[in-house]
Amino acid sequence: MSDTGESGEFALIDWIRRQPAPRPAGSWTRLGIGDDCAILGLKPDDASPLPRELLVTTDMLMDGRHFHLDRDGAEAVGYKAMGVNLSDIAAMAGVPRAAVVAVALPRRQADVVARGLHAGLRALADRHGVELVGGDTNAWDGPLVIAVTVLGEATDRGAVRRSGARPGDAILVTGALGGSLHSGRHLRPEPRIAEALLLHRTATIHAMIDLSDGLSSDLSHILEESGGLGAVLDAGAIPVHDDARRLAPDDSLAALEHALHDGEDFELCLTLPPGDAENLCAPGASPRVYRIGEIAETPGLLLRRADGRLIPVEPRGFDHLRGEAGQ
Amino acid sequence: MSDTGESGEFALIDWIRRQPAPRPAGSWTRLGIGDDCAILGLKPDDASPLPRELLVTTDMLMDGRHFHLDRDGAEAVGYKAMGVNLSDIAAMAGVPRAAVVAVALPRRQADVVARGLHAGLRALADRHGVELVGGDTNAWDGPLVIAVTVLGEATDRGAVRRSGARPGDAILVTGALGGSLHSGRHLRPEPRIAEALLLHRTATIHAMIDLSDGLSSDLSHILEESGGLGAVLDAGAIPVHDDARRLAPDDSLAALEHALHDGEDFELCLTLPPGDAENLCAPGASPRVYRIGEIAETPGLLLRRADGRLIPVEPRGFDHLRGEAGQ
Repeated sequence: MSDTGESGEFALIDWIRRQPAPRPAGSWTRLGIGDDCAILGLKPDDASPLPRELLVTTDMLMDGRHFHLDRDGAEAVGYKAMGVNLSDIAAMAGVPRAAVVAVALPRRQADVVARGLHAGLRALADRHGVELVGGDTNAWDGPLVIAVTVLGEATDRGAVRRSGARPGDAILVTGALGGSLHSGRHLRPEPRIAEALLLHRTATIHAMIDLSDGLSSDLSHILEESGGLGAVLDAGAIPVHDDARRLAPDDSLAALEHALHDGEDFELCLTLPPGDAENLCAPGASPRVYRIGEIAETPGLLLRRADGRLIPVEPRGFDHLRGEAGQ
Repeated sequence: MSDTGESGEFALIDWIRRQPAPRPAGSWTRLGIGDDCAILGLKPDDASPLPRELLVTTDMLMDGRHFHLDRDGAEAVGYKAMGVNLSDIAAMAGVPRAAVVAVALPRRQADVVARGLHAGLRALADRHGVELVGGDTNAWDGPLVIAVTVLGEATDRGAVRRSGARPGDAILVTGALGGSLHSGRHLRPEPRIAEALLLHRTATIHAMIDLSDGLSSDLSHILEESGGLGAVLDAGAIPVHDDARRLAPDDSLAALEHALHDGEDFELCLTLPPGDAENLCAPGASPRVYRIGEIAETPGLLLRRADGRLIPVEPRGFDHLRGEAGQ
């Protein structure tokens, strides 16, 4: 979801992660900056048989970057703001429980916008059993900004991280990709919470991430966090969304590029042992998943074309709101 | 900290609180919208002897409203953003533990601003044993916006709410008030965490709030949340900050007005039984507290002047950034 222009979000996050930080006595932190959620263990010394991991994630959306208030309306903004956060909880195979919301409202229409946001937030929150427990409301002369923080819990199988991929793993995605920003689909994310929980119960997921920046970029996070692995994607196996095809009706390669790089699909990308993948991809299996490639020992992201040729893929998210390639 | 102009923050929050909300099975919520923090009980059915209440609070600061980036610098902004949230944890007599930070950075200087923010956030977080566990970084063409969410825990004496004041309670504050916005002191909040914990151990605090909107406004929240009570403040007992005196060097009444209404002092205001107050105000007692009045059964906020006259006080926070009375 994020970007900082200039030297880029990832350079900045790397810098933050490299800063020395004292670890306070009784630290809650089991996993800090760099995954879809932080993982907090509230009783690090607890001998209880129930692992209880708290998940925390935050995402901020700004008018003109992630939505256009005038065009999309406040309710869509609230819906998206909740959705992108719930998607981060899904990426850890967690259960979302509570949310707090901070907003900077455009002064001119503060009340109307606030009520619209609330309706959109609640529509998605209610459906997923998430309670709005607090917030901070402000008005100013600037554009609408909304920051949502969601708390959730890992199941007793634990949270799934980005960092567990292994060479030979199959790579799966939960749905078709590409064209989300052009079609407006990015405003109606359907966080794959139920799907993630079901997959986590029935398979040994090694690594998982939600597809917000784009498949090439997000899969690369898994590869980096898993110790510098590589991946080979099968061009013909990547599910291309109709929204992407509509962007390139006569050019299937261009449509595939959208599926690889567009972002804001909010599907999940996961890696697991090939045997598990076969079971999940059996005819009639639920949820529907797509096996798109495998994890390799050699670093780098490759695309295997129909003719068998391997082509390097440059990880990049395409920024449709700016109309240019993001960093 | 908040305002929405137009019909006002409090009307909006009231509206949100009135909206029907389903209570999901296994709800974590022990206290929702309307206090300094939400209180989540992670195991509502837990028979454990240890009450374990999670506190959650979020605050957003915007350039031109709560700070001026060009004048104050990014480090001060980060410091304040962390401080106002820690102050909310202090208001529940809680222990802050972890924070997530979402930012919209001005694109021109995204990196420099991000590093300055980080330094300021960490300066205060490190001192209070708070870990930065996650965040979301974005850049845009708009002004700097930062939203911090802090998680903490209540002690085994439980969290202190706004709603427990009783007629006859003494009203105390932890420090001198007024003039914070004019002096720049609002940029260096010193969250009264240690003070709150110490007071909570040694006295029976009925209600507590941090002074962000201003004494008249914040004390009124306690009165409303405690079922519609009143309060009488002793004009001569309210500690007036030197910053307020400097604003009205020849007019002690005007200085008192600043102490009553200015806001952003980030001291605590608490109510407790008169006997407890006497102990806390004994000579040499630590932390230093000021007894400024008492809770009354009759609704309304009154000021007792030196001549014994009772004058009604209109609750209002004075918005110095706008230079006009906030709603």
